[in-house]
Amino acid sequence: MNISHIEHVGIAVTSLEEAIPFYENMLGLKCFAIEEVEDQHVKTAFFQVGQTKIELLEATSEDSAIAKFIEKNGGRGGIQHVAFAVQDGVANALNEVQEKGGRVIDQQPRRGAEGLNIAFLHPKTTAGALLELCEKPAE
Amino acid sequence: MNISHIEHVGIAVTSLEEAIPFYENMLGLKCFAIEEVEDQHVKTAFFQVGQTKIELLEATSEDSAIAKFIEKNGGRGGIQHVAFAVQDGVANALNEVQEKGGRVIDQQPRRGAEGLNIAFLHPKTTAGALLELCEKPAE
Repeated sequence: MNISHIEHVGIAVTSLEEAIPFYENMLGLKCFAIEEVEDQHVKTAFFQVGQTKIELLEATSEDSAIAKFIEKNGGRGGIQHVAFAVQDGVANALNEVQEKGGRVIDQQPRRGAEGLNIAFLHPKTTAGALLELCEKPAE
Repeated sequence: MNISHIEHVGIAVTSLEEAIPFYENMLGLKCFAIEEVEDQHVKTAFFQVGQTKIELLEATSEDSAIAKFIEKNGGRGGIQHVAFAVQDGVANALNEVQEKGGRVIDQQPRRGAEGLNIAFLHPKTTAGALLELCEKPAE
């Protein structure tokens, strides 16, 4: 697998409206996009920090993985996932993990925020962390 | 505050010995250093991913923040903190946060892994995530 950089870090928050001012006013970062990803039941806000984006995630439904993360975390937000940019295709990377005996959450890449192809690895394989692989789709 | 990039992402693991092979063999990353930080009661393993390091953290004592994080997390590892590289001094950044009404864990910068000056912000201020500010000390 050929990972070039960390594409984004996903941070669960209970309210984008409360969280965005901290990132803007205290850290001096700039929210450049807010996007709803309907099939994941989340609303996201993005900040660029060098090569990497901070993706704040607010649940729009109790079925959302973000709602479940916050519930498990005692009702508080926290860092939910890290997404690695792969250079040789998310599908190839998923195959490689499975050939080496690893487990994945997504058998096939699916469409995520910002139109990226994304897939999550299983925390049983990653020693606990929720890790995502992603890439820009071919034009 | 002037943040240039994400210096590292700290990931708690129950065992470096079990976690390192996943990052090396499945993700294709290379562990370039293992370091014990005695005053934080942790052993760390570093991987470079573009501008950012992945810092795996194993507790060396039950008093460690990593041991407490894993206990709260049902005995599993997970993503514990994100560290932003600041360009205008960690002490200045801490002052700025406090002047704007934010809370900090460390009133003064202290020495972290890799000899960096580091300080943590309080999750009450950051909307839940554990966020660190850091910089290389002046030579």
